[in-house]
Amino acid sequence: MGTKETVSVLGLGRMGSALANALVEEGYEVSVWNRTPKTIPNARSVATPQEAFQSDVVVTCLSTYDVQQPLLTGEIKTLVNLTSGTPDEARRTARWAEDNGVEYVDGVIMAVPQQIGTPQARILFSGNENHHVLDAFGEPVHVGEDAGLAALYDLALLGLMWSVFGGYLQAVALMGSEGIEPRTFTPMAMSWLTEMSTLLPEMGEETQTRSYETDVSALDINVSGLRLLTEANEEQGLDTTLPKALHALFERAQSNGHGNHSIASVIEEIRK
Amino acid sequence: MGTKETVSVLGLGRMGSALANALVEEGYEVSVWNRTPKTIPNARSVATPQEAFQSDVVVTCLSTYDVQQPLLTGEIKTLVNLTSGTPDEARRTARWAEDNGVEYVDGVIMAVPQQIGTPQARILFSGNENHHVLDAFGEPVHVGEDAGLAALYDLALLGLMWSVFGGYLQAVALMGSEGIEPRTFTPMAMSWLTEMSTLLPEMGEETQTRSYETDVSALDINVSGLRLLTEANEEQGLDTTLPKALHALFERAQSNGHGNHSIASVIEEIRK
Ligand SMILES: NC(=O)c1ccc[n+]([C@@H]2O[C@H](COP(=O)([O-])OP(=O)(O)OC[C@H]3O[C@@H](n4cnc5c(N)ncnc54)[C@H](OP(=O)(O)O)[C@@H]3O)[C@@H](O)[C@H]2O)c1
Ligand SMILES: NC(=O)c1ccc[n+]([C@@H]2O[C@H](COP(=O)([O-])OP(=O)(O)OC[C@H]3O[C@@H](n4cnc5c(N)ncnc54)[C@H](OP(=O)(O)O)[C@@H]3O)[C@@H](O)[C@H]2O)c1
Repeated sequence: MGTKETVSVLGLGRMGSALANALVEEGYEVSVWNRTPKTIPNARSVATPQEAFQSDVVVTCLSTYDVQQPLLTGEIKTLVNLTSGTPDEARRTARWAEDNGVEYVDGVIMAVPQQIGTPQARILFSGNENHHVLDAFGEPVHVGEDAGLAALYDLALLGLMWSVFGGYLQAVALMGSEGIEPRTFTPMAMSWLTEMSTLLPEMGEETQTRSYETDVSALDINVSGLRLLTEANEEQGLDTTLPKALHALFERAQSNGHGNHSIASVIEEIRK
Repeated sequence: MGTKETVSVLGLGRMGSALANALVEEGYEVSVWNRTPKTIPNARSVATPQEAFQSDVVVTCLSTYDVQQPLLTGEIKTLVNLTSGTPDEARRTARWAEDNGVEYVDGVIMAVPQQIGTPQARILFSGNENHHVLDAFGEPVHVGEDAGLAALYDLALLGLMWSVFGGYLQAVALMGSEGIEPRTFTPMAMSWLTEMSTLLPEMGEETQTRSYETDVSALDINVSGLRLLTEANEEQGLDTTLPKALHALFERAQSNGHGNHSIASVIEEIRK
């Protein structure tokens, strides 16, 4: 093997540590920096971000852009930004990089730390070309020229994830209130999710054509169902933040004339 | 084949029509009643619920229990109740059936009308033994002796479904605000859902043991993410009912000491 570039990782939280370990594993010469001193086997710990900037490539993985921005003072050759943020934050960082002669890759990690270094870890990136350090982390997928796009996919997919987790925890709490354990309920929830996921292409298509006629299930019946769900959660003494929010949103679509339309019509309320 | 029982269906909406068709298909002698007169090929239309009660088995599939209850006046031999409701409503109907000498099966349909008559249609039922008319509709699964349990599973799984659909539509709106079409985004959303579903067994286990230490992802970072999601939706001029509700719930868990814990700890807020 030829000599590989030197790479630094800024941020050794759950994800940053996994990234640093994957780079070491791939044979890169790795330096690491973290606010709270921390070590990674076979990597060199440095005392300041500026020391880390001497590497050919700097990978950042900090909590937020707010935390990251003040650290990026000094000369950086190539920045691979894997901190999560909004599309606007990513675009601003891309402009800052351009103004400062920094090669810039904006990526987001659609995986948990335990998947880093396996093909299951999808890394979406946008703007500049791929930088091959991403290959050490998982499967890089280019989503477009606009530097904000990876962040957009990230937030959209994370939003779906939080919805699933919130919905699942609410369901587990409801089942638990009648003594049904998660291990009894979860296999059913998993196959149900698989079923639901097969309905998404048609739902997506409907949001595009904006024709919501349905022989499957009308919003009316789903609004009734959401009312029952809220009542049942209340009867069991559970929090109703999530069922109520869903009910409010679906009910608004119903009042705006979508009662006999499919669930996809709720997007008209979201787009406003 | 021997002579099959006579079966009536009350309610010929999207789902009731599918049920009536499946019974005809299976060779039952079928009578149907609907508020708004409607016909089903090879079934006999009757003018009142009471005429329908002369059949050996009465299957109901109306919008809600509120609509159904006033219709159930007269002598019924066996009632297979497939109208959705809360566990309490199901239990009250079971008691009413017992008091009135009605054989009673309480079922819920975890499928869309198009799946009725295929093994993909799971029919959960609770209380009494299975009644074999359910076999005409799909795959019956007994979930327990308590008549309210099928309704409990129903609401829990539907709640998960509404969460997924709401989360998906919000994501489609967000992607759409930057010109990314559903057909580009949806395949990614589908494989992402499959990934997410593999995380549920561990999450369920954590809610049971109530130990929330994590090397995967801490609530802190997810609360930050939900704030970014809300901001991004706002920036794009989209409704934020759902992201805000998730943010509020997750943030409450964070303020109550779960910042460094896993997402599963949010259940402590739901259980209160
Ligand atoms: N974990 C996941 O499953 C996952 C998945 C995909 C994407 N991500 C993204 O990866 C990024 C990091 O997530 P994580 O799970 O690794 O979070 P984490 O475990 O909480 O680590 C946060 C990191 O940010 C640093 N940090 C926080 N505040 C700081 C400050 N004021 N100054 C300097 N450093 C600061 C922390 O340093 P200290 O150690 O000194 O606190 C730590 O290195 C986030 O943008 C997250 O959205 C995570
Ligand atoms: N569609 C699905 O994907 C699905 C899946 C699982 C479970 N379910 C459950 O199946 C049940 C029916 O759903 P659906 O999709 O078939 O709903 P639907 O298409 O809206 O049909 C509703 C039925 O209820 C009747 N109805 C409403 N108000 C009435 C009243 N005041 N008096 C008498 N009849 C009345 C309607 O009669 P008219 O025709 O006269 O309006 C119609 O037969 C619901 O409990 C639903 O939760 C549906």
